[in-house]
Amino acid sequence: MQKQNKTAVLTNPKLTEAAAVIEKALAQRRTLIVAGKCKVLYSGRAKSTLEPGERILIIKEDGSLLVHRPVGYEPVNWQPAGSVFNVETKADAVEVHAVRHKPRENVRVIFDEVFMISALSLADSGEFSLYASEKDMHKAILLKPALLEEGFKPISYEKKVEPGFVDVYGVDKNGRLVVVEVKRKTAGKDAVLQLARYIDAIKGKVDRELRGVLVAPSLGKDVQRLLVTLGLEFKALDPKKCAKVLKKDQNAKLEAFFKKGK
Amino acid sequence: MQKQNKTAVLTNPKLTEAAAVIEKALAQRRTLIVAGKCKVLYSGRAKSTLEPGERILIIKEDGSLLVHRPVGYEPVNWQPAGSVFNVETKADAVEVHAVRHKPRENVRVIFDEVFMISALSLADSGEFSLYASEKDMHKAILLKPALLEEGFKPISYEKKVEPGFVDVYGVDKNGRLVVVEVKRKTAGKDAVLQLARYIDAIKGKVDRELRGVLVAPSLGKDVQRLLVTLGLEFKALDPKKCAKVLKKDQNAKLEAFFKKGK
Repeated sequence: MQKQNKTAVLTNPKLTEAAAVIEKALAQRRTLIVAGKCKVLYSGRAKSTLEPGERILIIKEDGSLLVHRPVGYEPVNWQPAGSVFNVETKADAVEVHAVRHKPRENVRVIFDEVFMISALSLADSGEFSLYASEKDMHKAILLKPALLEEGFKPISYEKKVEPGFVDVYGVDKNGRLVVVEVKRKTAGKDAVLQLARYIDAIKGKVDRELRGVLVAPSLGKDVQRLLVTLGLEFKALDPKKCAKVLKKDQNAKLEAFFKKGK
Repeated sequence: MQKQNKTAVLTNPKLTEAAAVIEKALAQRRTLIVAGKCKVLYSGRAKSTLEPGERILIIKEDGSLLVHRPVGYEPVNWQPAGSVFNVETKADAVEVHAVRHKPRENVRVIFDEVFMISALSLADSGEFSLYASEKDMHKAILLKPALLEEGFKPISYEKKVEPGFVDVYGVDKNGRLVVVEVKRKTAGKDAVLQLARYIDAIKGKVDRELRGVLVAPSLGKDVQRLLVTLGLEFKALDPKKCAKVLKKDQNAKLEAFFKKGK
């Protein structure tokens, strides 16, 4: 595709022009950006009204819809992919309707002024990858102990226990001590033996029941038997999941927004 | 502000031009939209990499940042308000850096091609209001019984009980029957008496302990005493909260995205 064809932009169009460009962009399944003064009505199981203001409407090529105000990282209205769109031109407004059927939802964005329309053909197959180090995984478990198991309470981390440092150390819901060894890749026999050594070193010093849990995305071949023989446990945990927990925590506000009412 | 000043748009600019416009827009605290081919690197407690592709970068006037791919309603990268930005021009790229300090987070959006830049001054004070009807409130409680209380299990709703219909009917965590009467506005004496009548009608027919709970955003003046006298309870619940629960449920996928790793 020619660069010129990738991007159609119109500034301060008349409403009739705006309607035509919006309709064409939707028909061509382009990514559409409309900045203008609008109000937004939503009805589904609930209803919402957004009084007039200057905002950005984005409709992506898969039909997902976002309305963004000039502040805040959350969309004020949004709709997942799969809507059917239609555009209506009224005397003093252009209305963009997005209708989903299952569940029945209806968003109407009513512009009485359009500042800018951009219709883009975007090609994007770039891979997204999240990364967490072993230390990140420790932090994620401390932040959200249920990643290990329900009821787990961490006491300390990187606790010195000859011959080294225990990654995470805590108590389970039944009051047993738990020693956690974390690996960010498939755990092999060496990881199991390392954990066994820690357990051994601690065993003599405490009079509580003791559990050893190896945490890793997966277990190596033939490692399971050794683990069982040594009385240890395995908990599968993906570093990406940890990365998400950490990223989440940093965006606690965003999360709070999307979890309001939960 | 003149309409012309509200919107500055540039299509297919050279990278040096793009950098200048982006810098100016950020300095003027405009809402900035950049469409182009970019990669995105994030580092905070976790790290992420987004390989090159054609996307939309939005930086709002409060400094919140979103990167949107051409499909999906979720941003692939985002950052709440409060970042410090700087723009670097390299031989074959424009880099937009967003740095937050608490917590330390860093997003780098590296464009090697820019299709469109739009710098907008948007005024938006329009109020957003969510609405749920009384029936919507029933549905929200059925969908998420913890809105009433932890451990509540609904059995039926709109159950016929002379002299009318009980809104929601269920069992609490201690096995007691719960009759719920829902009002979407401040509940008055009539609501209390209505609930009392239902309780009375059911009392004779069951041999379990029975509770009556009036659910409403607030209680009217002098209603509390009547409620206590009749042995009934009050649970404050805002219809907006119910609307959010319902809207959430319809956007279960969106929620799932933002809760991944939770």
